[in-house]
Amino acid sequence: MKVHNFSAGPGILPKEVLQKAAAACLDVNHSGLSLLEVSHRGKDVIAVFDTAVSLVKKHLGIGDDYAVVFLQGGASMQFSMVPANFLNGKAAYLNTGVWASKAIKEAELYGVTHLVASSKDRNFAYIPKGYNIPTDVDYFHITSNNTIYGTQMRTFPESPVPLFCDMSSDIFSHRIDGNKFDLIYAGVQKNMGPAGATLVVLKKELLQKIKRTLPSMLNYAIHVEGESMYNTPPVFAVYVSMLTLEWLDTNGGVEWAEKRNKAKAELFYSELDRNSQFVGTVDTEDRSWMNANFVMAAPEKEEIFKGMLKEANINGLAGHRSVGGFRASMYNAMDIDSVQVLVDVMKSFEQKNG
Amino acid sequence: MKVHNFSAGPGILPKEVLQKAAAACLDVNHSGLSLLEVSHRGKDVIAVFDTAVSLVKKHLGIGDDYAVVFLQGGASMQFSMVPANFLNGKAAYLNTGVWASKAIKEAELYGVTHLVASSKDRNFAYIPKGYNIPTDVDYFHITSNNTIYGTQMRTFPESPVPLFCDMSSDIFSHRIDGNKFDLIYAGVQKNMGPAGATLVVLKKELLQKIKRTLPSMLNYAIHVEGESMYNTPPVFAVYVSMLTLEWLDTNGGVEWAEKRNKAKAELFYSELDRNSQFVGTVDTEDRSWMNANFVMAAPEKEEIFKGMLKEANINGLAGHRSVGGFRASMYNAMDIDSVQVLVDVMKSFEQKNG
Repeated sequence: MKVHNFSAGPGILPKEVLQKAAAACLDVNHSGLSLLEVSHRGKDVIAVFDTAVSLVKKHLGIGDDYAVVFLQGGASMQFSMVPANFLNGKAAYLNTGVWASKAIKEAELYGVTHLVASSKDRNFAYIPKGYNIPTDVDYFHITSNNTIYGTQMRTFPESPVPLFCDMSSDIFSHRIDGNKFDLIYAGVQKNMGPAGATLVVLKKELLQKIKRTLPSMLNYAIHVEGESMYNTPPVFAVYVSMLTLEWLDTNGGVEWAEKRNKAKAELFYSELDRNSQFVGTVDTEDRSWMNANFVMAAPEKEEIFKGMLKEANINGLAGHRSVGGFRASMYNAMDIDSVQVLVDVMKSFEQKNG
Repeated sequence: MKVHNFSAGPGILPKEVLQKAAAACLDVNHSGLSLLEVSHRGKDVIAVFDTAVSLVKKHLGIGDDYAVVFLQGGASMQFSMVPANFLNGKAAYLNTGVWASKAIKEAELYGVTHLVASSKDRNFAYIPKGYNIPTDVDYFHITSNNTIYGTQMRTFPESPVPLFCDMSSDIFSHRIDGNKFDLIYAGVQKNMGPAGATLVVLKKELLQKIKRTLPSMLNYAIHVEGESMYNTPPVFAVYVSMLTLEWLDTNGGVEWAEKRNKAKAELFYSELDRNSQFVGTVDTEDRSWMNANFVMAAPEKEEIFKGMLKEANINGLAGHRSVGGFRASMYNAMDIDSVQVLVDVMKSFEQKNG
């Protein structure tokens, strides 16, 4: 029986990707060897990285003025690498949640942070708007999707300074113009792969701005020069990311993903708004298509609802441990059928317990 | 037909480990979900980490005074993390090759390095001996096995200061007393897993000595506190490491591995010494059991030998691009049969071309 995987991350991956990943654990390209035990300098692995890089560029709509590398350490490592490389005086940050706050904290080790705006006053239930981006800063850093709270920026500000974005939880989920961004990073484990790899996309001209003497592993220029292989890269995590990008590409790319994600979000949120038993926790206009947060009108009935979820084979709907409640994560790989199953359970709960 | 995988790393893994890894890509613990798409905070993944940590402790013979974490970034990241955390004034290093040299270079960003001894004078073809370890340093750093050159320390100096060791390419290959070391690290992709995870073992009391304000991801105390889950860990790479540790444990642990690795090394090196067509490149007493380096007596016949290797399904025998020649890597997972196949090809080459 199909399990409906609403996990916030590591999150759902396409079945055909998982099947190919399993096959590669046993044999890569009819070599008689597993992908897990071959040299990263061999042609099989180099082809994986080349394909992944080229699909990333295609679906962000960017050209050869950008470098694309796969690193390790997730967004958490990027929170430090970004300022280590590019914060030479002052940088601007938008605070939209726990991850943005962590990025700000790490940046403070390297220079002055200017807080452009914050939605902390209402527990990050909205995306701040109408703020001014200063012109005397090295960059402006935003978080496009806030996994923990369920808010998302799907349009982006015009920035007078280089625009940097943590897209960990919504990269490739809808069309964006990659050229608006000078640096994009994403832990791949939400929307494009398993845990263990981090995508970094940056304008090559940025590399000229690195002034600090840095540990080699923290220096973007070294990783770009080494084409993701300055040190042994996380081969399997990048391979699964490549498979997921191929799956996206074959199905119609980000345009297809956008239609599908919009349809899933509309199905879910229209039920959330209609149903008397559940309450959304974020401002309507800032609702994320990736993570939908909600609580129960009657919290004392949570256990009943949880029992019904279990019976319907719905997995991973618990809210983040820091906020509680529920969270439906509906990443690219999720079919609308799974959202329909959840909506049906919500309807059924209302009928029985409303 | 069986392929004999002599790759230097990522290296050979046991067939049964690969089969279990493939199965987990499709379904973990009959959950209906892949290991690649479930939360790292769920019970399935936490059990993986607990088992891996407990097997690491068992086979290093260490107790609860040690912390064990799985990080990302390989030994290359440890080259920086070690001095960032523990080099407060001066540290001593033994230079036995490219990786040790890189560790020294990264340490120089954080303090003074004292070079205890080096074998660079003869292209790292031996392990220096008879050196003095100073007492006024924060730690003494060594590299137990030098993958590129094929030298290995199987006995270790008594150190008057904390002893730190990069064991990336020979951890769990023979019995050691883990209690001799204050810190051990290893990229897992040589002898205990696929690329993408780094094992770090350190005495808990060391954590008191961290004085710098560090990026969170570079701070051992934060990773120990988070039990490898301060940020999303590389779940699959740790899972395969756990499977490999279970395989080791079931077969008889490091005692069994030591017997088997010694037998493989003896088989190979006795042929190398006997055969007129091949010449070892390192001092006999410092030969590694993991990586055996050699060149041809008649280098112009290399292509003939390479053809014979290919015909015998021998893979990954090329030397590192920085030294050339040949290198037979015989990690834990390699059966003696594969070494016998290589020895037979060497004999056959001598008969036909000697």
